[in-house]
Amino acid sequence: MKQLIYLLFATMILTACREEAGRKEASARPDYVLVIHGGAGTIKQELMTAEKEQAYRQVLQAALNAGEQILRAGGAAMDAVEAAIRVMEDAPLFNAGKGAVFTNAGTVELDASFMDGNSLNAGAVAGVRTVKNPISAARLVMDSSVHVMLAGSGADEFAREHGLETVENSYFYTEERLKQLEKRKGTEEVSLDHDAEEPVKKKYGTVGAVALDQAGNLAAGTSTGGMTNKRWGRVGDAPIIGAGTYANNQSCAVSCTGHGEYYIRNVVAYDVSARMLYKGESLQQATQYIIHQKLKEQGGSGGLIAVDKGGNFVMPFNTPGMFRGYVTADGRTAIAIYKDSQ
Amino acid sequence: MKQLIYLLFATMILTACREEAGRKEASARPDYVLVIHGGAGTIKQELMTAEKEQAYRQVLQAALNAGEQILRAGGAAMDAVEAAIRVMEDAPLFNAGKGAVFTNAGTVELDASFMDGNSLNAGAVAGVRTVKNPISAARLVMDSSVHVMLAGSGADEFAREHGLETVENSYFYTEERLKQLEKRKGTEEVSLDHDAEEPVKKKYGTVGAVALDQAGNLAAGTSTGGMTNKRWGRVGDAPIIGAGTYANNQSCAVSCTGHGEYYIRNVVAYDVSARMLYKGESLQQATQYIIHQKLKEQGGSGGLIAVDKGGNFVMPFNTPGMFRGYVTADGRTAIAIYKDSQ
Repeated sequence: MKQLIYLLFATMILTACREEAGRKEASARPDYVLVIHGGAGTIKQELMTAEKEQAYRQVLQAALNAGEQILRAGGAAMDAVEAAIRVMEDAPLFNAGKGAVFTNAGTVELDASFMDGNSLNAGAVAGVRTVKNPISAARLVMDSSVHVMLAGSGADEFAREHGLETVENSYFYTEERLKQLEKRKGTEEVSLDHDAEEPVKKKYGTVGAVALDQAGNLAAGTSTGGMTNKRWGRVGDAPIIGAGTYANNQSCAVSCTGHGEYYIRNVVAYDVSARMLYKGESLQQATQYIIHQKLKEQGGSGGLIAVDKGGNFVMPFNTPGMFRGYVTADGRTAIAIYKDSQ
Repeated sequence: MKQLIYLLFATMILTACREEAGRKEASARPDYVLVIHGGAGTIKQELMTAEKEQAYRQVLQAALNAGEQILRAGGAAMDAVEAAIRVMEDAPLFNAGKGAVFTNAGTVELDASFMDGNSLNAGAVAGVRTVKNPISAARLVMDSSVHVMLAGSGADEFAREHGLETVENSYFYTEERLKQLEKRKGTEEVSLDHDAEEPVKKKYGTVGAVALDQAGNLAAGTSTGGMTNKRWGRVGDAPIIGAGTYANNQSCAVSCTGHGEYYIRNVVAYDVSARMLYKGESLQQATQYIIHQKLKEQGGSGGLIAVDKGGNFVMPFNTPGMFRGYVTADGRTAIAIYKDSQ
């Protein structure tokens, strides 16, 4: 009898603790969160001019503003993610949209993917050449087709038929990117740089965004121009659901940037969610392990941004820098580039 | 004190049980296992002729033989998987290689992927048109490039440059497939059938193989022609590592067949491994849940084949039938098509 009373007492304490934790979590959840990235890599302050840094910061700020405006007004995480990425795609600084790098054939081929954490629906395009904003094409595939992934000229045709803005491939030609290609051409080297002045080769010029909206929905998107001098129709992780992008209202939203092949083999974006749901890890634990241990041990460099259903967010990377920024409903906001400033 | 003795006793019993289970598992592991599939769907005995069924069974048997020969001789799981899939690709019956279906544009575009569970390296091709055996192209990408996925004409070029056998796209034209396209053309319908005589639309004509070799290495591969009348360069799960194919010596090797979009959104192949490693589920538990609950609830039809590191294997599907077969070192072997015969 005495034991029974002890047991009942212990159960009551445990229940009370759980409820308390639940309340804490609920009250701590900001109304909305937006996190963006503009690529990870060997981005070091000593290799950057003040003007260039300022230009990057301005675009990142504009992307945050575009997304936050939507979230503050009670808009959808999906709309905020798309809006933020479109700003970075339209800027020539990032390796996505306008600023995309050249392939070995001297063309520009773009990849993007998009996922809705509420419906678990997703869309992606690979190797498009005439879509001005590949992230919107990825979303269109999700919204207006029964498919998840469209590739090549078929994906361009789909976007055009559905009224998306298209441009000549030459729209994407920027002088800086052409210089980068000329440096690599004739070599078998490929490059993920998004800066011609950059003497170090490792820069992963993907852009991405993840958001939690006031309704509690999560969304994620990623967009890239791939690698300078890429050949053979190489596809990285950016258009691959589970590798470069994943969102699930039960866990988190993730957008990756890095050496794409490692992200595909390790199914990185989905792995964050799987570790949370199946192992009970926190977003922080799951992403720290994946970026700083699992990928690092394999030599897979890069980073990711992620937000969980409770509004916790992380921006880990195992490279010297990652263009990144965040804004939350409770007034926290920052833009950062190098490691120290995280 | 009495309690302490009870506790010690209980611990000893538990430890003994665990050791016993461990020994059982070790002694039960067959020296090798090969499992193959030729697609899932509304495959029903009443819709099949005896001749047709015999033809399917012959190819499945030939595929098992080709793979087993390698495994019996102590060869690699990777070689067995590739050999078994090549047999099915060379047969006109399955929607992969020779028997691939037509796109809306009247061409044939093939996808395949391959993964080595030992190194966790992987390769994939999407939308190739001139590679006779796409599974070998996928393996070539893994073995001879730093990339994981190549798409479109670039992937064809890569295969040709590396000496893989190429054919004219017309090599893949079979009369039956042309009839299928003509039936679908002018409609917006796509079809995953691999049988023109089949009045029901849902047949997922992917082929795949998974193997465990004598050294304890796992491998998986998947190959497909996609959907009849597909447009816009649609890419399914077959060439996507994590969705259609995954292998990891720590857990299992998986090849999927079904409505590809559901397999991409649910990252099915990797999910089997994640549930085993993170949740401690058995191969049986993980795959039963994914195929018969998770996918079924979403309306995602199809199946998968999988073998784990202990040599346990499963072939679940939520459709009326799935072409499938297996062979093990300890003499178990069977070929099956319909649900009843599993």
